[in-house]
Amino acid sequence: MYRIDLNSDLGESFGAYKIGNDEAVLESVSSANVACGFHAGDPLVMLKTVRAAKAKGVQIGAHPGHPDLMGFGRRVMNCTPDEVYAYTLYQVGALQAVCKAEGLSLQHVKPHGALYNQAAKDPELAYAIACAVKDAGENLILLGLANSSFEEAAAKAKVLFASEAFADRAYEKDGSLVSRKKEGAVIHDAELAARRVVQMVKDGTVEAIDGTLIKLKPHSICLHGDTPEAVEMAKTIRSTLEKEGITISPIKEVILK
Amino acid sequence: MYRIDLNSDLGESFGAYKIGNDEAVLESVSSANVACGFHAGDPLVMLKTVRAAKAKGVQIGAHPGHPDLMGFGRRVMNCTPDEVYAYTLYQVGALQAVCKAEGLSLQHVKPHGALYNQAAKDPELAYAIACAVKDAGENLILLGLANSSFEEAAAKAKVLFASEAFADRAYEKDGSLVSRKKEGAVIHDAELAARRVVQMVKDGTVEAIDGTLIKLKPHSICLHGDTPEAVEMAKTIRSTLEKEGITISPIKEVILK
Amino acid sequence: MYRIDLNSDLGESFGAYKIGNDEAVLESVSSANVACGFHAGDPLVMLKTVRAAKAKGVQIGAHPGHPDLMGFGRRVMNCTPDEVYAYTLYQVGALQAVCKAEGLSLQHVKPHGALYNQAAKDPELAYAIACAVKDAGENLILLGLANSSFEEAAAKAKVLFASEAFADRAYEKDGSLVSRKKEGAVIHDAELAARRVVQMVKDGTVEAIDGTLIKLKPHSICLHGDTPEAVEMAKTIRSTLEKEGITISPIKEVILK
Amino acid sequence: MYRIDLNSDLGESFGAYKIGNDEAVLESVSSANVACGFHAGDPLVMLKTVRAAKAKGVQIGAHPGHPDLMGFGRRVMNCTPDEVYAYTLYQVGALQAVCKAEGLSLQHVKPHGALYNQAAKDPELAYAIACAVKDAGENLILLGLANSSFEEAAAKAKVLFASEAFADRAYEKDGSLVSRKKEGAVIHDAELAARRVVQMVKDGTVEAIDGTLIKLKPHSICLHGDTPEAVEMAKTIRSTLEKEGITISPIKEVILK
Repeated sequence: MYRIDLNSDLGESFGAYKIGNDEAVLESVSSANVACGFHAGDPLVMLKTVRAAKAKGVQIGAHPGHPDLMGFGRRVMNCTPDEVYAYTLYQVGALQAVCKAEGLSLQHVKPHGALYNQAAKDPELAYAIACAVKDAGENLILLGLANSSFEEAAAKAKVLFASEAFADRAYEKDGSLVSRKKEGAVIHDAELAARRVVQMVKDGTVEAIDGTLIKLKPHSICLHGDTPEAVEMAKTIRSTLEKEGITISPIKEVILK
Repeated sequence: MYRIDLNSDLGESFGAYKIGNDEAVLESVSSANVACGFHAGDPLVMLKTVRAAKAKGVQIGAHPGHPDLMGFGRRVMNCTPDEVYAYTLYQVGALQAVCKAEGLSLQHVKPHGALYNQAAKDPELAYAIACAVKDAGENLILLGLANSSFEEAAAKAKVLFASEAFADRAYEKDGSLVSRKKEGAVIHDAELAARRVVQMVKDGTVEAIDGTLIKLKPHSICLHGDTPEAVEMAKTIRSTLEKEGITISPIKEVILK
Repeated sequence: MYRIDLNSDLGESFGAYKIGNDEAVLESVSSANVACGFHAGDPLVMLKTVRAAKAKGVQIGAHPGHPDLMGFGRRVMNCTPDEVYAYTLYQVGALQAVCKAEGLSLQHVKPHGALYNQAAKDPELAYAIACAVKDAGENLILLGLANSSFEEAAAKAKVLFASEAFADRAYEKDGSLVSRKKEGAVIHDAELAARRVVQMVKDGTVEAIDGTLIKLKPHSICLHGDTPEAVEMAKTIRSTLEKEGITISPIKEVILK
Repeated sequence: MYRIDLNSDLGESFGAYKIGNDEAVLESVSSANVACGFHAGDPLVMLKTVRAAKAKGVQIGAHPGHPDLMGFGRRVMNCTPDEVYAYTLYQVGALQAVCKAEGLSLQHVKPHGALYNQAAKDPELAYAIACAVKDAGENLILLGLANSSFEEAAAKAKVLFASEAFADRAYEKDGSLVSRKKEGAVIHDAELAARRVVQMVKDGTVEAIDGTLIKLKPHSICLHGDTPEAVEMAKTIRSTLEKEGITISPIKEVILK
């Protein structure tokens, strides 16, 4: 039996500011990465998002980011590993309490934006994050880029690791993501994206941008919800997977089976 | 056997900014109220403060405040009960994770500054806080002003309540604090303050500003550490209590015995 | 010849967060109140908003608010007059520099949200704001609620004052706004709103909620742009005024003629 | 006649948080770099700092930084040139208004911390800052590291440039600062630091860390005030310069003569 998790970033609104299409995205995913107030989100938004996810049976993960609301956590910041450890622990704990208040347990942690990208290439930052995930308890799963520093860091910190791949991104033959600056880096065709995901799940492979067939067998697929097109692609991917007999399950069910 | 807890606000530094005399204060108190990043404190400061308290065997409480770093949480803000509930849950959870990372459990929650003062008089805000304390789990104790909305709110939310009194503040005959605007509101004589605390603990009474003897039997005494004089007063109170055969114990031991 | 200014709040986006319908609203108004980074807006948004207003020939005002991004400046905060003075000066100066960079002069200052509402009833806060407007130079005009503390404060600080009325709000017979909690407080019928504005401009009167005809002769009418309905009402009011032979002019042309 | 400016960072307190020894430092310097609320400082602190500088006849400059209060502006942030331009303009404008309220004109702009270090090596960021300085008007002077991107950027933006050197830092033979990670990078001997400054002013040279005599003729010397030792060194440098017949003058008098 084939299983895959579908994850997306949610709860990125802040105060009077609304962003994203959370209600629509919750129809497609099995795991939600909820912003924790540093790069996006606020306590009230977190509470509403957790309630909405709960209502749909979607598992919840923390989505910690840099303390950069003005830049939405997308700007590289040279935080030290100690800072990253403490910031991650803080944000994860805040969301854990919100989950506990709703009778839920947190499932996973997936870093956001620049923190994600920096840590994917920086073993020290990745390890700082993995340690925070470990120390926050609840056997939390670290969700991160396949073929990156996250996997080794998780092993070193003795944390469960789940790898994610992107439905709408091209891959280099070494398994890394094609830079967004290169042509062909982003896949806009929802059908094509869906077929690629099916292949990742069933064969554990994907075609790299140069035509090479490479190995890629992720536990989770990252979907987007920031545009109507993204929401449509998410729907298409989900329905295609279901037609192909692939079960959409939360990360914890994928990695434990 | 007489028991009393001594509590103080700690961990109010922020980034490069240092405030307070935490190391010195930790010598005198049995419970520390740790700022949680809204009105003061940051994740790294929280971690260092929890470690310092742990090293001294001091119990840890969350000290949530309004989201007003510029005003140090001392300015009245008209947050709704829903907002106060979510803000409290968020801040408490963040500190719970820091404690868990250090192998500790959080003991209590004491609101800070304007949030404390507003909620002491506003049953809805007090109840919102009490519910957050309840929902954060761990059988957390709500620490608040004696003779205030906190006690009723805690009962309604089924949360343990501990009352605090102030060693350096005068009381009206109705048990409320004398406004800081009135002469005689603040007691500067450490010996006098210490004797008043002894009387509260042993007799359950204190002399009000008009000379009336009123009932006041708190579970905890709030000490300050923001000035050298405050640190000295804290020391004097602790040593006086010890000489009088009163045991200084964390809140949880006081209210459960 | 009849003249009136139409003003609206603009530039309230922040970082990745978009709010409002600035481009559409700029078609209807003669003066824009631009958020200055405390309750909304950021430096890049301010620059873009000033450029957009410039392209449409719309005059620019500063729209300072409380330092409460999470609450969008809508929550009462007990800032002292000294704080309000300094916060206003800071925000006005920041926007002045942005205007200067675009070869423009700032026209006016209109406080936002809770700061506006608090100052309208609090002579000390109103005076603190008026002094900041005075001290920021450029003969800035203070735009505030008609029949409020603002007018007296402006006179005392020797600052030009322009009064504003609301097209979509009902008035009490004493000239104050009907509380939003009362039925009939908000007018949803664009045609009715437009007719009321025409009457204010031509006759200097408006019908109060109890049917009384009261005096109200504002220099400016506040329009909203936060919903499609608001944008439509703004258009209707502008076109109705033009049909009635009323000239839409920036505040400075209204008060100086 | 020999002239040199002495500058120091001031006004870095925030809300209830005090940092630095502003009163003492104001005795030694001729120009103050005042924090503008992004990495440090707040509107009330800015106002108090400007008043204190005015009382001592010290000229005022803006000290804009990254929007990173938690990191005191010391962490590299990948802001775009457009963001840096807008952030600088905003912060400079805010301080200009504060100066205007006190009857003063702003003299210069010196970027802070990571923004300073990034721009010193990045022509695009340096140019963005120089353009903001130009566009803020008042013929502001850009104060930056000698032998860095700032000088060329100022020329390109047609802005007056003043170069600064550090009394307490060693130089490489190419004129760059010795990295703080290397031994000998920081000079702790106040007498030695003072003699080096005298040589820079009179001979336009300084001895590099390898013993080479290099050219270095700054318009201003950066002094520190964050520790008692720094305050002492500042005093020693000032008195030594005066004994040597060197006039301490604000930047604008140094570069225009």
